[in-house]
Amino acid sequence: MASTSRSGAPPASGGPVDPVLIEDLVAASRILAAEGVLDGYGHVSMRHPGDPNRYLMSRSLAPALVTAADIIELDLESNPVDARGRTMFRERFIHGMIFKARPDVMAVVHSHSPAVIPFGITQVAMRPAFHMAAFLYRQPPVFEIRDVAGWTNMLITSNRLGAALADTLGQNPVALMRGHGNVVVGPSLPVAVFRAIYTEVNARLQTIALTLGGPINYLAPEEGDIITNKEPGDVGRAWNLWKTKALGK
Amino acid sequence: MASTSRSGAPPASGGPVDPVLIEDLVAASRILAAEGVLDGYGHVSMRHPGDPNRYLMSRSLAPALVTAADIIELDLESNPVDARGRTMFRERFIHGMIFKARPDVMAVVHSHSPAVIPFGITQVAMRPAFHMAAFLYRQPPVFEIRDVAGWTNMLITSNRLGAALADTLGQNPVALMRGHGNVVVGPSLPVAVFRAIYTEVNARLQTIALTLGGPINYLAPEEGDIITNKEPGDVGRAWNLWKTKALGK
Amino acid sequence: MASTSRSGAPPASGGPVDPVLIEDLVAASRILAAEGVLDGYGHVSMRHPGDPNRYLMSRSLAPALVTAADIIELDLESNPVDARGRTMFRERFIHGMIFKARPDVMAVVHSHSPAVIPFGITQVAMRPAFHMAAFLYRQPPVFEIRDVAGWTNMLITSNRLGAALADTLGQNPVALMRGHGNVVVGPSLPVAVFRAIYTEVNARLQTIALTLGGPINYLAPEEGDIITNKEPGDVGRAWNLWKTKALGK
Amino acid sequence: MASTSRSGAPPASGGPVDPVLIEDLVAASRILAAEGVLDGYGHVSMRHPGDPNRYLMSRSLAPALVTAADIIELDLESNPVDARGRTMFRERFIHGMIFKARPDVMAVVHSHSPAVIPFGITQVAMRPAFHMAAFLYRQPPVFEIRDVAGWTNMLITSNRLGAALADTLGQNPVALMRGHGNVVVGPSLPVAVFRAIYTEVNARLQTIALTLGGPINYLAPEEGDIITNKEPGDVGRAWNLWKTKALGK
Repeated sequence: MASTSRSGAPPASGGPVDPVLIEDLVAASRILAAEGVLDGYGHVSMRHPGDPNRYLMSRSLAPALVTAADIIELDLESNPVDARGRTMFRERFIHGMIFKARPDVMAVVHSHSPAVIPFGITQVAMRPAFHMAAFLYRQPPVFEIRDVAGWTNMLITSNRLGAALADTLGQNPVALMRGHGNVVVGPSLPVAVFRAIYTEVNARLQTIALTLGGPINYLAPEEGDIITNKEPGDVGRAWNLWKTKALGK
Repeated sequence: MASTSRSGAPPASGGPVDPVLIEDLVAASRILAAEGVLDGYGHVSMRHPGDPNRYLMSRSLAPALVTAADIIELDLESNPVDARGRTMFRERFIHGMIFKARPDVMAVVHSHSPAVIPFGITQVAMRPAFHMAAFLYRQPPVFEIRDVAGWTNMLITSNRLGAALADTLGQNPVALMRGHGNVVVGPSLPVAVFRAIYTEVNARLQTIALTLGGPINYLAPEEGDIITNKEPGDVGRAWNLWKTKALGK
Repeated sequence: MASTSRSGAPPASGGPVDPVLIEDLVAASRILAAEGVLDGYGHVSMRHPGDPNRYLMSRSLAPALVTAADIIELDLESNPVDARGRTMFRERFIHGMIFKARPDVMAVVHSHSPAVIPFGITQVAMRPAFHMAAFLYRQPPVFEIRDVAGWTNMLITSNRLGAALADTLGQNPVALMRGHGNVVVGPSLPVAVFRAIYTEVNARLQTIALTLGGPINYLAPEEGDIITNKEPGDVGRAWNLWKTKALGK
Repeated sequence: MASTSRSGAPPASGGPVDPVLIEDLVAASRILAAEGVLDGYGHVSMRHPGDPNRYLMSRSLAPALVTAADIIELDLESNPVDARGRTMFRERFIHGMIFKARPDVMAVVHSHSPAVIPFGITQVAMRPAFHMAAFLYRQPPVFEIRDVAGWTNMLITSNRLGAALADTLGQNPVALMRGHGNVVVGPSLPVAVFRAIYTEVNARLQTIALTLGGPINYLAPEEGDIITNKEPGDVGRAWNLWKTKALGK
């Protein structure tokens, strides 16, 4: 049973977390719902700020309804430190296995981001239509659950499937999941949220550009690399706006 | 006159209904309006929890305005137990005849769900673009009122037409109605609402995928079958969100 | 100067109007803004209930801001009975000339309804995708201002141009205006509002259907005729919803 | 360092500005956010009403959050008169260099207006679909930052790049920026806001028209010229609506 550790005892806590950071995680959940990336489903997590082997995410709940009391601490096998009877997301293994495979990642978003879905079921690769989605200069891979598990309910309900998804993600910021959704990661919670939102926006813009017809002048890999790795934009400006709106203050 | 039973006396009531269930039906009506499946028109019904030969639905009213006082009990020929002067929906026969033909169905939605309309007037079959619409693995049939009634006002205004629609629906969860809308059914009210909403969402996603161009990797029938019949997703999570928003509490 | 009658004296009033009807006209203006048919521009009018040679419309003002105090009475040449210094719409002649040409028309909407604009500048005729837009079974003609006035500012700023537009409209419920917008008329204010809203909705649905590809099974003229002229739907149900939302009560 | 003048001393102020005009600038920022032209990014500026060599714009802040206290005065090299520790937009040089090159321009908007982005990365020229976007009769040029600076972070972060963009803009009201967004200018703040909003709306309508298929009957240059230069429409009507909504009063 994945919800307990091998010894049967729950994992130890990584220590108390600053309530300001918990509020950020709550805000992230509500922001992604408000911006149309999440609906009643999907989830966002952050690595424990004091212990890289723990992460934090909501109990199983619609993202728009999350509060600080809903946040659960888990180890990287997605065993809860103390669930206190709260139901956990069945797909939490997405988060644990990505945090395990990617030490640089501090936050993970899993969504059914609507405009992105069609790119996971067609042959059209996502490409950056504008600088806000520069991080897509690394073409998002597509995870095909059939290749690793045959006919399934499409969900990542085990560490084995989570590890397979993390393997497809590789060193990319985004991976699509065929017929399901996508995962987006970042070196901080605001950056992961930013990327999840602009992945959705970019999907809409790229669809329009493809409708207008080619050739399409996407951001060059050189431009994408500069923006993503050398001269990142001001994520905080949007984060402040989103948080203000999401928390109503 | 369809609004009275053959004997001329109104049908007997199936008994009192828990106000919590009535509130769910009110919520369903408002949810479907809030999510863009219904506008000023369309309706949702539930089978009477204590009598399979009765069902409950609103009087003729825009779905966003429905309250508990507007709910009417009807028999499966859509005669009201006690209309108390309230006007009934002219198309209530959709509901009665489906409840009659499908003992497994506990709730019915009839809508003019906008993104779905084009699939009823073109040759493009609806197919599941993602797992949230897995139930579409059974390709929705299209009801053609011309085949059974020639030139009409397009409405299902009699038990004869309701029975013809129920016949087209067969054992499917969804049937399209050419130039009109669709019907969606489920084994519970939340499931029917869920399916109505994700039928609309899926129509949008499939349209985008078709714009991007094929081949399109839809959910396989095997995947659709697993999700729909063996390992259903967590409908309650979205239902709680929708109900919280719809009832403002 | 079109704003005074030939004799120089203002036209006589058709008499006082029931405030309930004025409230309906205010509601119509706000409804059309709320439903996305009007933005900061466009207008709706109603024939004076007591005098077929007078009509009522707002002073020049964004439709969402209209109140009862903004309503002006005009004759069919669009001279005001008593403007009291209020600026009138420059395109009021659309309304006056249609009321003059069409005794059956009791209300007129002029809008830049966005989804409809493309049908006025391409060769694609509007056709009814569903029964809510059955009135489009009479294919809307397209008014080309170049044909009657050469190079202009595109506006209907005189009775001559208004009469030309009314001539193009003929006996139809809708006429498109190339590169500008459309006019919609009805035998009552709620019906005109209903038609303006569902002309916009139908334009969206028809565009999607055309994207999916033909052949497209539009409503047959026989079906359109039945719904429009013999068995009209329940406009009041939507009107009550729209009015409740628009007036916030 | 561009943020100080050559002498090292900050530029002198152009004098106090009527708070009503500052409120207009605040409103413009919020209007453009509310209408979907700006999201967390982008900015609007106005020339100083008392000194053509100064302009006013917000500190670096999401447009929806701007208040009067956030407005900074700058010279045309974009040095602040008195930043008081407030962070400035990195791309303020867009504004300064356009004000310098175009004495007729009194306001500048820079946005990532979403529907417009695809026109900057494809070969499809923007053309006016309706009279509200008549100003597009002068086909918007596309600025290609690669031509002047090679591989960059896509941003206009210097007076040199600002001057290059102003050069591409020339005497036009709109210029697209490949893979980034656009700039819109006007002879007044309301006109610049109006043009920014209807550039976005027109992009949506033109995309739909192209989907329906050609030939497309765009506004003729003669019509565009009349509306833009000889008989401009009533911008104030929309401005009053937008300002009322944006300032909540």
